[in-house]
Amino acid sequence: MSEQSASYWNPSIPEAVRASFACQGAMSLIKASMPVVEQGRVEIHLPHWDGVGQQHGFVHGGVVGMIADSAGGYAAMTVAPEGSSVLSVEYKLNFLAPAKGTMLIARGSVIKAGRRLIITEAKVWAREGTEERLCAVMQQTIMAVSEPERA
Amino acid sequence: MSEQSASYWNPSIPEAVRASFACQGAMSLIKASMPVVEQGRVEIHLPHWDGVGQQHGFVHGGVVGMIADSAGGYAAMTVAPEGSSVLSVEYKLNFLAPAKGTMLIARGSVIKAGRRLIITEAKVWAREGTEERLCAVMQQTIMAVSEPERA
Amino acid sequence: MSEQSASYWNPSIPEAVRASFACQGAMSLIKASMPVVEQGRVEIHLPHWDGVGQQHGFVHGGVVGMIADSAGGYAAMTVAPEGSSVLSVEYKLNFLAPAKGTMLIARGSVIKAGRRLIITEAKVWAREGTEERLCAVMQQTIMAVSEPERA
Amino acid sequence: MSEQSASYWNPSIPEAVRASFACQGAMSLIKASMPVVEQGRVEIHLPHWDGVGQQHGFVHGGVVGMIADSAGGYAAMTVAPEGSSVLSVEYKLNFLAPAKGTMLIARGSVIKAGRRLIITEAKVWAREGTEERLCAVMQQTIMAVSEPERA
Repeated sequence: MSEQSASYWNPSIPEAVRASFACQGAMSLIKASMPVVEQGRVEIHLPHWDGVGQQHGFVHGGVVGMIADSAGGYAAMTVAPEGSSVLSVEYKLNFLAPAKGTMLIARGSVIKAGRRLIITEAKVWAREGTEERLCAVMQQTIMAVSEPERA
Repeated sequence: MSEQSASYWNPSIPEAVRASFACQGAMSLIKASMPVVEQGRVEIHLPHWDGVGQQHGFVHGGVVGMIADSAGGYAAMTVAPEGSSVLSVEYKLNFLAPAKGTMLIARGSVIKAGRRLIITEAKVWAREGTEERLCAVMQQTIMAVSEPERA
Repeated sequence: MSEQSASYWNPSIPEAVRASFACQGAMSLIKASMPVVEQGRVEIHLPHWDGVGQQHGFVHGGVVGMIADSAGGYAAMTVAPEGSSVLSVEYKLNFLAPAKGTMLIARGSVIKAGRRLIITEAKVWAREGTEERLCAVMQQTIMAVSEPERA
Repeated sequence: MSEQSASYWNPSIPEAVRASFACQGAMSLIKASMPVVEQGRVEIHLPHWDGVGQQHGFVHGGVVGMIADSAGGYAAMTVAPEGSSVLSVEYKLNFLAPAKGTMLIARGSVIKAGRRLIITEAKVWAREGTEERLCAVMQQTIMAVSEPERA
């Protein structure tokens, strides 16, 4: 988290974040995993397989967007106030290069954690052998919602 | 297409657009279809099934983004100069309401078709019975690339 | 306001909106005015004069952004819950054509008014004689903040 | 420039960039200057004075957007192919904190320089004494246009 320390950290957060991820059918559908969960930062990995492709054999831009959006949202969840959940308000994504390679890695991180709004970014890298190439960048707004408000 | 007439239209365009869509493994994976292709406008339909869900039972925001991005991109393809293909440069998506209902409909349309850049928008509606509720809005930049340039 | 009726309207709102606008030194600096204030919709007008130009004689893109951002924000203010003020969270702007002509008109309108978040759009038109040409489109997120929270 | 080296650099570039900036009436109107021009990176400085304010005494969000947009665009100009000029296609800006302090500094940098599209970011900092606080982040798309195309 580059700009501001989280006001709140609790060793059970990574477990809660992983449990939420595990309930998302859509992440399972595309075979995404989330091997890294730290304070203000997560990584989502996606193998490049036929089901996530587009007409030229690259990973579909929409799938790149899915893992970027989720990486930013889960990074925000690691720093949200206790007892609140997070909603994705909006995001903006630029595609920089075709998503080739054997695996994509979306790295989400928190730029600014306010009480109510959490601003994040994500970068999506395409890995081929030992090389990584930046293929998308995202800027995102997340809102923390307390459980009573949600209900 | 609200702001400007396309300079180019050819009755074979819808067929080419549908053929491109049919080659996208990712659209098939999520069970999306594209029943409407007109000049400057397409619709993508997505049934709400378990595979596209998130932890609260709504359609995953990333999947909402996928169909919005694709709807804008294919709307752009219908007005791109002859012999060119289209690349998604970037998009920005706001989530307005949870994506509930039995089906989502992403309606993409062209705001401005230039020779090089095509600006589009998409709105995603959640249908429940005979009602539709707006759940996301997107603004997008598409670039037309001639086949020689691409190669 | 295309998608949802405001839950709150009060005949004193336009006056409050105009009073806020009148306190903005930056709007006065660029010679912008706000002749239209309705429920969920405002217009900001900007004469094309030397002080707002760029190197090719068009209105500076940053100034186009200023009036688009303000038009969206004031449109949101007309539908914000009573006793709250509005903050601009973020916006995204596409430039469609050079901002020529004798006057620019930024039309801001509300897409969705929630209790907490208000989503707006603005279109900026360049007027030359009796013609108007669309030169920019914006999509924006506004947050309503109650006065006690603010303090 | 974090991700890619510019293919082109020429010692006369900073001079051309400064000359373009000097022709922008709007930058002069708000009293902005551009003291730093390097390969893939520029800084725009703005003193906090009454003319750029809003109703609470902070710098107007639209003015923050103006210097962010310009900082990204001029950073792109430093790496654009020889003989081309740059057009701002679109940008997206998040506001993180009120723009207080005695001076704002917009730092624009290039994320990826392609032949045709240049993706940039800008961060706007509010300086108060020796402290700087991040108040806005922007992500932007710039298009390089060759002079014959433009004409």
